[in-house]
Amino acid sequence: MSISRLTITPQDIEQHYAVISKIGNLGPSPEDGYLRAAWSNEETAAMKYIEQAALQAGLTSRWDALLNLCVETPGDYTEWVECGSHLDTVPQGGNFDGAAGVVSGLESLIKIFSSDSSRKRGLRLRVWRCEESATFNSVYAGSLGAFGQARPDCLNNHFRGISLAEAIRSQGADPDYILYGKRTISTAELDSIAAHIELHIEQGNLLEKEHLDIGVVTGIRGPYRSRIILRGEFDHSGATPMGTDYRRDANLALGYILVELDKLAAQHISQGADLVQTIGVINSQKDWNEKHSEVYQNAVTKVSGYACFTLDARSDDGVFLAAYREEADEAIQQTAAKFGVEAEQSLIGFEPGIKVLDSHLAGVIEHAAQELGLSCKRMPSGAGHDAAIVGKQKKSNGLNVPVGMIFIPCRRGKSHSPDEFTSFEAIAKGASVLAASLARLAA
Amino acid sequence: MSISRLTITPQDIEQHYAVISKIGNLGPSPEDGYLRAAWSNEETAAMKYIEQAALQAGLTSRWDALLNLCVETPGDYTEWVECGSHLDTVPQGGNFDGAAGVVSGLESLIKIFSSDSSRKRGLRLRVWRCEESATFNSVYAGSLGAFGQARPDCLNNHFRGISLAEAIRSQGADPDYILYGKRTISTAELDSIAAHIELHIEQGNLLEKEHLDIGVVTGIRGPYRSRIILRGEFDHSGATPMGTDYRRDANLALGYILVELDKLAAQHISQGADLVQTIGVINSQKDWNEKHSEVYQNAVTKVSGYACFTLDARSDDGVFLAAYREEADEAIQQTAAKFGVEAEQSLIGFEPGIKVLDSHLAGVIEHAAQELGLSCKRMPSGAGHDAAIVGKQKKSNGLNVPVGMIFIPCRRGKSHSPDEFTSFEAIAKGASVLAASLARLAA
Repeated sequence: MSISRLTITPQDIEQHYAVISKIGNLGPSPEDGYLRAAWSNEETAAMKYIEQAALQAGLTSRWDALLNLCVETPGDYTEWVECGSHLDTVPQGGNFDGAAGVVSGLESLIKIFSSDSSRKRGLRLRVWRCEESATFNSVYAGSLGAFGQARPDCLNNHFRGISLAEAIRSQGADPDYILYGKRTISTAELDSIAAHIELHIEQGNLLEKEHLDIGVVTGIRGPYRSRIILRGEFDHSGATPMGTDYRRDANLALGYILVELDKLAAQHISQGADLVQTIGVINSQKDWNEKHSEVYQNAVTKVSGYACFTLDARSDDGVFLAAYREEADEAIQQTAAKFGVEAEQSLIGFEPGIKVLDSHLAGVIEHAAQELGLSCKRMPSGAGHDAAIVGKQKKSNGLNVPVGMIFIPCRRGKSHSPDEFTSFEAIAKGASVLAASLARLAA
Repeated sequence: MSISRLTITPQDIEQHYAVISKIGNLGPSPEDGYLRAAWSNEETAAMKYIEQAALQAGLTSRWDALLNLCVETPGDYTEWVECGSHLDTVPQGGNFDGAAGVVSGLESLIKIFSSDSSRKRGLRLRVWRCEESATFNSVYAGSLGAFGQARPDCLNNHFRGISLAEAIRSQGADPDYILYGKRTISTAELDSIAAHIELHIEQGNLLEKEHLDIGVVTGIRGPYRSRIILRGEFDHSGATPMGTDYRRDANLALGYILVELDKLAAQHISQGADLVQTIGVINSQKDWNEKHSEVYQNAVTKVSGYACFTLDARSDDGVFLAAYREEADEAIQQTAAKFGVEAEQSLIGFEPGIKVLDSHLAGVIEHAAQELGLSCKRMPSGAGHDAAIVGKQKKSNGLNVPVGMIFIPCRRGKSHSPDEFTSFEAIAKGASVLAASLARLAA
């Protein structure tokens, strides 16, 4: 099959965006942001549009017990080549995180199906529910739930006054699948997945900065996150001489710790480690402060006795990350001690990443981009995605589902914000790579 | 006169503390802290006790129109040697900041008066109102008001539901003196002040750390205070690579700025400058945050787009401090720029210190300490005091009122806190130095 017959145009993308950009829009225009909460009427409406467009093109559809949507090419196949993403958004989110992947998947299936060539494998688009954690504080509940792996206690989380269980029921789905860890995807269905590819906006600014069309995702970073409390001593700022003989200054220790951590990370990155490290919060987490009001004892005219910050370090290599955590902890303790300051560290969470996505799939994606004349680069994914959940599933033969990801640039790397934007041109390029890759895998 | 006849004992101090420790006490014991607000019943009650003890000892008293108290040795003198301090406290304050100086002054006058030697000059204790800013946000309103220099708008400041003007009236004093800048101390009275000495707790930990009895204050530090807002860009913490090509990280810039400022200060101190520098607040000023809620957009999983901190730098040398301010501003701008972060600086306040208190008085105080066998050290005052207001007054001959200060140690340098503590022994040593100094100056 000629690759040109599968080329997806900006207009192909735009026709679907013309509809879904009106669903869950918080104002008259896309710039006003979106809210399509998990298992909400808005999420369902957007999914139903995808189903309707698929049926019109002659594809088939089915919904699982959690009302995740499957769009498929008609016919019986023993093996399936899949793509997937989600349509829910964070509050005040954009219309590209997830949606770009779903629309690209839909157009890919339509283009391949209408090209009418023979295929060895069926094609499937999965539209997952509840990828975002920002509404019910339960990330990947749709994909995890499909594999019987969602945490049952997430059903008690509330958003806009209703529990997740109530939200699931409100759409006609069955929360008992999550409560009892029942799978909606059978072992036979899992075993039949030959490959799974997710297209997603990068949510970072690397592709834009380097003027690249396509990111071929090598691995998915997992985070370790911790909170560090520094306890010094409050003293009079004018009357207490400077220096550690007289002061135990938590804020000053914080400054030196930030620099030490930055240097430590830079050293590992220069040695080739995959690592990003971020001090996201310094003393500014409102709900935390309400419970730990010592931070409010800091004043313009006092030596600081208390500071609190968070550390988010991510790597696609969980073994490296665990070792890095120990080094960072040590650097924090040693630097704090130099200032007579006590450092208390508590783990917020640790989730190993996926170092290597399927290398064959990465090659297929890269080859497709090159055939289409698009610039591309191998890169890790900094954020987690439904594809990572699929990629962690083991088939009966003991092997993981082969997973690939295609990144497309988004403006200034913005996501989870009304500023989130990527052009129909950029989506169309990514969708064309997706279509070419799926077609090759299904042939 | 033999210096031994003027020696003040811990018991001399304790008798007065037995009374005033009950006035404004926030609980059954001194450890529960104090509140004697400016122009409150509690402040007045404490002042009335001082007056009563003075009258019992044969001294005289008078109150000015703002109800600052003067205790004097009887008789007409063309020149007066003064001491002074205050009895108001911050909320949850201690009973030594101010009170130690008033009690020491009272005992000094009693001891000198009862020693019955002839004097060329009269002796006076001034008990100022409203030295603390923490209640009505109007520091030194009593002493400034006496010289017609308090800011009239401070009368509108509120504490516990009443304005400062109402508080002043509630005690029978006349706020019009502040409103119209009328002096309660006439030019003739000002011209007659030969010397003014304030004894005060150090409010720092230098004397305690160096095991010294007495600090002979060389100058009074004045502060420059500013607030610095750092604006970067919020980004995804996992998907945005590290480094300034990709990130404009306000929190990271903050860390490097703190270290740069610390090094800059250390460099000037090593070259002999009098300087203390404190980063008191990082992102933690609650009322500021409510109005500038960008700080709450920082999150564990975001590159930081906003940080705010305060800088308090103090020196006894106002000219040096103004130059230091420019250097610090430059260091902040340059470091922020390295991270692509914008730094916006706003001045909170600049108040030149007094580089040199009267050197003759410092010599008299030092000599008295040495005669009493007490260890002492010349040192600047980090905090401002009523004595600085007196020392800034010019007499008709164009010269400033000669001013000296005596510091005594306080436990762990704590002040403005229920933890504030200094022993009766330590106060008695300081009071003995005060008495010997006043006696010598009055002889």
